[in-house]
Amino acid sequence: MIPTKAYAAHSATDPLAPWTFERRAPGPHDVQIRIRYCGVCHSDLHTVRGEWGDIAYPQVPGHEIIGEVVARGAAVGKYKVGDMVGVGCLVDSCRTCASCNDGLEQYCEGGFTGTYGGVEKETGRPTQGGYSDAIVVDERFVVRIPDGLDPAAAAPLLCAGITTYSPLREWKAGPGKRVGVVGLGGLGHMAVKLARAMGAEVVLFTTSPDKAEDARRLGATDVVLSKDEAEMARVANTLDLILDTVSAPHDLGPLMNTLRRDGTLVLLGGNVVPHDVPPAMVFVFSRKRLAGSLIGGLPETQEMLDFCAEHGIVSDIELIAAKDINTAYERMLKSDVKYRFVIDIATIGA
Amino acid sequence: MIPTKAYAAHSATDPLAPWTFERRAPGPHDVQIRIRYCGVCHSDLHTVRGEWGDIAYPQVPGHEIIGEVVARGAAVGKYKVGDMVGVGCLVDSCRTCASCNDGLEQYCEGGFTGTYGGVEKETGRPTQGGYSDAIVVDERFVVRIPDGLDPAAAAPLLCAGITTYSPLREWKAGPGKRVGVVGLGGLGHMAVKLARAMGAEVVLFTTSPDKAEDARRLGATDVVLSKDEAEMARVANTLDLILDTVSAPHDLGPLMNTLRRDGTLVLLGGNVVPHDVPPAMVFVFSRKRLAGSLIGGLPETQEMLDFCAEHGIVSDIELIAAKDINTAYERMLKSDVKYRFVIDIATIGA
Repeated sequence: MIPTKAYAAHSATDPLAPWTFERRAPGPHDVQIRIRYCGVCHSDLHTVRGEWGDIAYPQVPGHEIIGEVVARGAAVGKYKVGDMVGVGCLVDSCRTCASCNDGLEQYCEGGFTGTYGGVEKETGRPTQGGYSDAIVVDERFVVRIPDGLDPAAAAPLLCAGITTYSPLREWKAGPGKRVGVVGLGGLGHMAVKLARAMGAEVVLFTTSPDKAEDARRLGATDVVLSKDEAEMARVANTLDLILDTVSAPHDLGPLMNTLRRDGTLVLLGGNVVPHDVPPAMVFVFSRKRLAGSLIGGLPETQEMLDFCAEHGIVSDIELIAAKDINTAYERMLKSDVKYRFVIDIATIGA
Repeated sequence: MIPTKAYAAHSATDPLAPWTFERRAPGPHDVQIRIRYCGVCHSDLHTVRGEWGDIAYPQVPGHEIIGEVVARGAAVGKYKVGDMVGVGCLVDSCRTCASCNDGLEQYCEGGFTGTYGGVEKETGRPTQGGYSDAIVVDERFVVRIPDGLDPAAAAPLLCAGITTYSPLREWKAGPGKRVGVVGLGGLGHMAVKLARAMGAEVVLFTTSPDKAEDARRLGATDVVLSKDEAEMARVANTLDLILDTVSAPHDLGPLMNTLRRDGTLVLLGGNVVPHDVPPAMVFVFSRKRLAGSLIGGLPETQEMLDFCAEHGIVSDIELIAAKDINTAYERMLKSDVKYRFVIDIATIGA
C-alpha cells in the first residue's frame, strides 16, 4: 500500500484539511504516479460540498493531475519510471461497451469511474483525487505529457482543455469557421486559445466589458456583450459553432440567433435545471442544432496534449500552496482567478 | 395571361370556394404547367385560416403539385412540352446567397418565395398554389417526375416526401441505423417508407395502439406506444435518429432518452410554442443532439423523386374531387385520412 498525503473534505461544510490515507499497491497494469501539480476545477467544489449528490467523506477532490511515474506493474507497456504523465476526470470504465471500444470512455454505457467520488473497482473503496501526493491508475487511463509543456500550466488541460478541445474537433472548428465561446473562465479561456490555434475566428460572448482586453490577448477576434441586443444583432447568423461554458440556467435563444444555417450550440455544463430553449421554428428554419459534450476519451485527450505541445498552449494559471485551497475556492466562486488555480503538490506536507 | 380555375379561401373563416384568376404569361425561363394533381397538406389549412399570420385573400393553397408542361419560355433548357413535372413548397428564392448557391433554397437567407402566400417577384401579386388547373414557374424551381411513379400518389412527395427524406440523408439513415419516427400521419408514413427503403430499422412512436398494424405494413420494424413508460424504457438508448413529425408542443425528454450516444432528434414541425426540452445534462452525458429540418432544396427534391422511383415508393393517398376539399379539411383535423388527400384537378371546373 502507498501512504499518501492529501487535502480532503471531511464533510460538506468543513473546509478542506490535511489527511493521510493509503493508495492501492500497483497491479500489473497500473502505474504509480508522484503527483506534482493538480488543477482546481469548479467540479471539485460542487462535489465536496455535496451539491451534486451525497458523497462519502473524507473526500479528496482533483482531476487535473500531472506527475511522474515512480513505479509500474509488470504488464505496463506504455510508460516507464520517470515519465511525466497526466490523469484527468476518469480512472476506469467498463472497457467493453461500444463507447469504450470507440475510445470514448467518458460516455461508457456502464458509467465511467470518476477520478474522485467514484468507487475503485480493485478495492471497493471510494476513489480519491489529485489534491494528494500519489495516485495509482491503470495505464489505459493515463496520458503522456509531451516535452515542452510546462507541467504546472498543463494540469488544467486534463479537464478544461479536453472539455473544450473535444467539441471543437467533433464540430470541425478550423480555418474559415467562426466559433463563439460563451463565458471567459477556466473552460472559456481554453476554448478561445484552442479554437484560435485550430485556425478559426473566435467570438467571445461575455457579460463583463472588462474581460474584452484579456479575451483579445488570449486569441478572440471579436468580443460581444451578450446582454446588449445591438451587439448580439451585429453577429446574428454569423457563427458556425458556439461552445457554451456557462452552467447556470440561461436563455439559449439569443445565442442560437447568432448561429448560421447548420450551426451548432454545444452545452458544456451538465446542468440539471433546463435552459430556456427557443421554439422548434428556430431549429427548423435554418437547421440549427443544440448539442452537448462531456470531457473527452483517452485517445483524444492524448491528441489534445500533443496539439497543445505543438502550438505552445497551456492554461493561464495561478499556482497556490495546498494550504490555500479554501481561499482559492472562495475566490473561484467570485470568478477571481485568471484562469485556473493549480496546487503545487510539493507543498502538501508543509 | 393564363386564365386559371381554382379553389380559394376568400377569408379566414369561409369554406374554400371556386375562383378564377390569371397566371402570368410564361417568361423566358418559365414553364407553364397544366396541373393534374395537388396534395392537401396541413400547412394549407393553417395558412388559409390565418393561423400562421395574416394573408391576402383570395388565397389558393396547395404545394404538392404535379402536372404536364404545356408551354415554355425560349430559354428553358430542362423541360419540354409534355414532360410530367412537379412543384413543391417554393417557387423562387434570392438565388444568390450561400444557401441558394448550395442548392438549399429552402434556407434562402432572404427568405424563399412560398408557392402560395408569398409575393410573386415578376408581378408583385400574391403567389397562388396548386388547388388550380395551371401554374407558371421558373424552371429552376421545377422537378421532373420520373417514369413509373403514379402522378397522383407522387404529389405528396413534393412536401411530405422531401420533408422526411432530407433529414434522413442529412443524418445518414441507412443499414445498421435505427430510426425512430414520431407520429403516423402524412409526414410520418413517408418517413417510415423512406427510412426503411434506405435500409434502416424503423421504430414508430405513436399514441394510438390501432396504428401498429398499419405501421408494420408501411415498413416499421417496431412500434412503441409513446405514453407507455415501460414501452419507452424497452427502447431506451437504442436509436440513432428520430424524426419528430408532431407539431403540437410536447415533452422531448422521453424521446431523447431513446437516443443512443451521438443520436439526433430532428424536429420537422415549425412550432412557435417551445417544446419541453430536457436539461443540459441529457445533451452533455451522451452527446445527444436536437435539430430541425425544413422541406428540402431543389437538387435534393429531384434526388428524392428519383430514389422513390427506384424503390417504388409513393404516398398512400385518398383521391378526392375539388368540391370535397372542405370535408377533407375537417377529416384531416381528426387525422381521418390514410395518409394524404390528393385533389384530382380534372374535377376543378365540374
